[in-house]
Amino acid sequence: MINSKNLKKLDEFVEKSNKIAVVAHADPDGDSIGSIMALREILKTKGKDVDFFINGEIPFNYKFIKDLDKASLTYKEKKYDLFFALDSSDEERLADKVDIMKNSKKTICIDHHKTNNGYCNLNIIEPDFSSTGEIIYEIFKTLKYEINERAAENIFIAIITDTGKFIYDNAGYKTFENVSDLLKLNIDKNEIVKNLYSSEPKNIFKLKADVFNSTEFFMEDKVALSCLFKENLKKYNLSLKDIDGLVERLRDIENVEISILIKELDHKTYKISMRSLGNSDISKVCEIFGGGGHKNAAGFKIDNIEFATLKKLILEEVEKNAL
Amino acid sequence: MINSKNLKKLDEFVEKSNKIAVVAHADPDGDSIGSIMALREILKTKGKDVDFFINGEIPFNYKFIKDLDKASLTYKEKKYDLFFALDSSDEERLADKVDIMKNSKKTICIDHHKTNNGYCNLNIIEPDFSSTGEIIYEIFKTLKYEINERAAENIFIAIITDTGKFIYDNAGYKTFENVSDLLKLNIDKNEIVKNLYSSEPKNIFKLKADVFNSTEFFMEDKVALSCLFKENLKKYNLSLKDIDGLVERLRDIENVEISILIKELDHKTYKISMRSLGNSDISKVCEIFGGGGHKNAAGFKIDNIEFATLKKLILEEVEKNAL
Repeated sequence: MINSKNLKKLDEFVEKSNKIAVVAHADPDGDSIGSIMALREILKTKGKDVDFFINGEIPFNYKFIKDLDKASLTYKEKKYDLFFALDSSDEERLADKVDIMKNSKKTICIDHHKTNNGYCNLNIIEPDFSSTGEIIYEIFKTLKYEINERAAENIFIAIITDTGKFIYDNAGYKTFENVSDLLKLNIDKNEIVKNLYSSEPKNIFKLKADVFNSTEFFMEDKVALSCLFKENLKKYNLSLKDIDGLVERLRDIENVEISILIKELDHKTYKISMRSLGNSDISKVCEIFGGGGHKNAAGFKIDNIEFATLKKLILEEVEKNAL
Repeated sequence: MINSKNLKKLDEFVEKSNKIAVVAHADPDGDSIGSIMALREILKTKGKDVDFFINGEIPFNYKFIKDLDKASLTYKEKKYDLFFALDSSDEERLADKVDIMKNSKKTICIDHHKTNNGYCNLNIIEPDFSSTGEIIYEIFKTLKYEINERAAENIFIAIITDTGKFIYDNAGYKTFENVSDLLKLNIDKNEIVKNLYSSEPKNIFKLKADVFNSTEFFMEDKVALSCLFKENLKKYNLSLKDIDGLVERLRDIENVEISILIKELDHKTYKISMRSLGNSDISKVCEIFGGGGHKNAAGFKIDNIEFATLKKLILEEVEKNAL
C-alpha cells in the first residue's frame, strides 16, 4: 500500500500546478518511456500543460508508441511548476535534464529501485512494485484520476517490459491483477505485443545469430562469454544501442550461472555486461575493475587493454570471486 | 461461463468412479502435461485411484515436473471407470491410448480447440480459454474441489506455456485474473519459470545459432526460411523432438509475414512447419502439399523429393497463395 499522506501531497502538488515536466532515466526502456507517456496522459486529462523529455535514443521496438514524437527538445529558460522524475534511482540518471528539475518549483520522484534515497520534495519509492508504470497506475487509480485507454496502454508497456513478459520475480499476484484491470480498459494488447516483440530488424537478428554462434563456455559450462566487436556492428550497419538482451539470453542456457558480454566501444576500450543466477555475485567482480551494479546484474568499462588480456583477466576474477 | 449442466454431470461421473485414467495428446507440451498432472492431483484429493499416461517423449524443459516419472506404461487388460481425454481435438491425437478410452465405462473430453467435435460421453469444449489447464481450473474451482499447491503449479505451467508467457491473443483479462489467483496459492513461480525458460541445453542453443545463422529471406523479407538437416542434429547429438520454437522465432523478425522451417526427417523426406502473421493464410499452401492446419500455423510432410526442388516449390506456392 502506498502511503496515503504521500498520495494526498502528490494530489495537492498536481492541483496547484499548471506547467508540468515529466522526465525519466537515460538510456530509455519500456518502463521509463511507458511511465512518461502514461503520466503525461493522466495529467492532460486534468487539463495540465505537460512537457515530456526522452533522455536518449529510443530503441527500435518502442518507436511505435503514440505521441513519442511530441517530446520536447528545448528546456533552457523554461520554468515548470512541477517536475516528475520517473524510474530514476538518482539525479545522475536524469542526465542533463537535471537542470529542469533544479529550475522547477516543486519536484516529485516516483520509482521502484530500492537504492533510491529520494532526491525530490516528494518521493514515492515502492520497491515491491514490478515497475514505475505499475506504481503510477496504483497512485492515480487510488486518487480516482481518469486513466484513459492510452494511459492504460503505456502502463501495460511499462509492466510487460520490466517483468520480461511477466516472468520475473517482480511480477506477483498483484501485478497480474493490475494487468487484468488494464486489459478490461480495452487496450489493444495484440498490437502492443506485436510491436514490442515481433519487430526485430533483420540485421539485428543476423548479428545476434553471429554473436550466439561464437559464444564460448568455460568452467564446466558455468560461464558463457560472447563478444560484440565494432566490426560485427559495422557489417550490419548497426550501433550498440540497437542491441540488447544478449547477455540475458546467454544466462538462459543450462548450467550457465554467469553470462558475460564484452562490447568493443573503441580501440582497446570495452564495456562489459555481466549477469548471474542465484548466489553468484558478479558485482564483486565488476567492482575489481572499477564498475559495479547488483548481485545478479553488473558491469564496467575499461580502456587501454588488449582484448585477449581483458578476457583472461575477467575469467580469472570470475573464477576467484563469483563461482 | 462453462455450462453448469455439464459441470454437474462431470461431478457425478467423478463421484461414481474409482479407477480413473487421464490422457492427453501425442507430442506432449506444457498444456497437455500440466493439465494431466493438475487433474490427477485434484482427483487424488478426492480419494480416487488415478493412472495417467504421457503420450510421447517429454521435452527437456518439462522434465522437472514432479511425479512425471509415475506415469503408467501398461494399459492392456486394464478397465477404468472413467477416462479423461485432455487437450486433444480428436481421437487420433490420443495415439494408441485411444484403446484405454474404448475400454472405459465413461469418458470425458476437456479441450480448448474449437475444431473439437466431441468424441466422449461428456464434452467440455471451451475455445475461449487460453488452455485446457485453465478450463480445468475453472471447472474444479466452480465445483469447489480442493486445488492444492501442486495442482496450481501445473495449471500455471499449462497457462504460461500455451500463452507464450501470457502474450498470445488467448490470454485476456480473465486469464490474468486466474493466474493472479494461482499465485495466491503460494506456487513457486520463480522455480517453474527457471526450469521452463532458463534450462536450454548448450547443444540446443548452439544448434539454434547455426540454424538462425543460415536463415534466408525472400520476397522483400516477407518470408524467412530456415532448414534443419539431419547432419545439423547429428553434429550436436540431438533429435528433432529436442528442438522447438524455431519457426515462431523467425516470424518475430521485422517485415516477416511468413516463416518456414524445413526439417529433414530422412533421405528425401521432409517435414515443413509454417507460421504467419495476420491475414497471410498458410494453411492453403500446406493443403496443396497434402497437409493442413490453421490460418497462421500449418504444416505438411513430403517424401521422395530433392531439397532444392522442394524449397523452390514451397516459395512459389507461398508467393501465389499466401502473400
